[in-house]
Amino acid sequence: MLITILFYIGIIAESMSCAVAAGRYKVDLFGVFFISFVAALGGGSIRDVLFNHYPLAWVENPNYVIVVIISAFIATRIIGFIQRLKFFFLTLDALGLAVFSVIGAKIVIGMGYGLTHAIIAAMITGSLGGVLRDLFCNTIPLIFQKELYAVVAMACGAIYWFAYPYLGEDIATMVTILIGFVMRMIAIKYKISLPIVTLEKENS
Amino acid sequence: MLITILFYIGIIAESMSCAVAAGRYKVDLFGVFFISFVAALGGGSIRDVLFNHYPLAWVENPNYVIVVIISAFIATRIIGFIQRLKFFFLTLDALGLAVFSVIGAKIVIGMGYGLTHAIIAAMITGSLGGVLRDLFCNTIPLIFQKELYAVVAMACGAIYWFAYPYLGEDIATMVTILIGFVMRMIAIKYKISLPIVTLEKENS
Amino acid sequence: MLITILFYIGIIAESMSCAVAAGRYKVDLFGVFFISFVAALGGGSIRDVLFNHYPLAWVENPNYVIVVIISAFIATRIIGFIQRLKFFFLTLDALGLAVFSVIGAKIVIGMGYGLTHAIIAAMITGSLGGVLRDLFCNTIPLIFQKELYAVVAMACGAIYWFAYPYLGEDIATMVTILIGFVMRMIAIKYKISLPIVTLEKENS
Repeated sequence: MLITILFYIGIIAESMSCAVAAGRYKVDLFGVFFISFVAALGGGSIRDVLFNHYPLAWVENPNYVIVVIISAFIATRIIGFIQRLKFFFLTLDALGLAVFSVIGAKIVIGMGYGLTHAIIAAMITGSLGGVLRDLFCNTIPLIFQKELYAVVAMACGAIYWFAYPYLGEDIATMVTILIGFVMRMIAIKYKISLPIVTLEKENS
Repeated sequence: MLITILFYIGIIAESMSCAVAAGRYKVDLFGVFFISFVAALGGGSIRDVLFNHYPLAWVENPNYVIVVIISAFIATRIIGFIQRLKFFFLTLDALGLAVFSVIGAKIVIGMGYGLTHAIIAAMITGSLGGVLRDLFCNTIPLIFQKELYAVVAMACGAIYWFAYPYLGEDIATMVTILIGFVMRMIAIKYKISLPIVTLEKENS
Repeated sequence: MLITILFYIGIIAESMSCAVAAGRYKVDLFGVFFISFVAALGGGSIRDVLFNHYPLAWVENPNYVIVVIISAFIATRIIGFIQRLKFFFLTLDALGLAVFSVIGAKIVIGMGYGLTHAIIAAMITGSLGGVLRDLFCNTIPLIFQKELYAVVAMACGAIYWFAYPYLGEDIATMVTILIGFVMRMIAIKYKISLPIVTLEKENS
């Protein structure tokens, strides 16, 4: 129940901030919807296709698609407003990241897989939507350069996997989301990121 | 039967115009084949993977692949000729769009899905091939900026869904293809497109 | 057994040379891992999704993921060393290409498919990983411009299909890998490539 509400918050936050990002490129209204859809539901779709987990969430429940499109449409009407609320949306996005990652881990654990799979599924669900979005906008994916986005997603997968046998599914979910959310906000605040790999200097 | 002929016309038109488009970038002959394949059969493949509809059309019937490759090869031999016949190919492409979209809708309706799914499947089948093609050519996908391409695809899905219980599958197919084709030609002729979303001006 | 060892050599070679290539763009450590994973295991994953061959290799055996990540990490520590050994890695990559292609052909032949499918599966397994890698790095895929990469992969699929009824699976595998490897090395040495298709001059 709570996870459903959080999931809706996650896809709304994703599609709204994406719709704003899409405005940076010259795309039409359909492009905005499409990119928002990919960002909000693409990560979970890739996970389900790779792990053979059918039907996909939005095929089973097309309301998700409708919510994404309405959110993206509203976002295009209030772009200036959203830009002034940038921190609010960063916060929602951090929440969405944690929620998506935990959902990803829960699904593959429910299919009988172990720790490595939970980490990979959390990473795919939490961060691949953003990779796809950047692909379609023709830029090098931001998550390869951004503050710990994928690392937080993977951490959520691992934390949930260790926590749920002790705490039960519900409390483990809440605790993991909280930790993931805090990690992400700290990474944003202190601009913590992974080392950039470059060719120029030899590392050995 | 008629739909099969139209499908062949669709993939031939797609792969030929694609092969010409690929020539704008420095790609080799294999690249031309690959991009033509993706444009002609990629949308349907994504639909089948997302809706768990196996085997994919071209896996079941590899003749499609051979037709695409031969068409693309011929196109590279007669590029100048095709460019002079630009309007003829735009017409074939409009027909292909309508045919692909109706096929997409038919398949998911045949799997027991409803209106929303028919619209989404029509959109995926009719227009995602072009999105993939543009991705591989490293440009922002044209359909996000082009005259109503995806909108026509979605309209076909909806029209077919409303029409087939009354008109039967065959007549509904023909009527939908006709309407979709006319919509697309009108959009091209009058350069009708969706509003472009931009950041510069606030819309609210 | 031998094929498993060769497969490990293939994914190690792919992920190491990829990690070095990723350094040309400003990506962080996660980006390096992700792109290496896609290059080493992406082609096989696409093949399995398109041919409905579940579970994917790395889902069934997550050791592959760990090997890829460790190889990529080591590569980032010894970039200068790898660059001096460029020819050694080109050789490993040529071996990997042949191995991946044969594995792709074997899998779909094992599913009951024929020659066309063997060629397509070999092409997908051997060369799509590199296409994906280039997509994520935001360049026009190199294999569309590079020495016979995809052609060697397809040739491996065809050779294996013709050879295995006569030679048995094991010897056919070895022979095909050898021929594919030699083809690729010759193509590199003499810079043999497919004709580039361009718009400028009319070919007819």
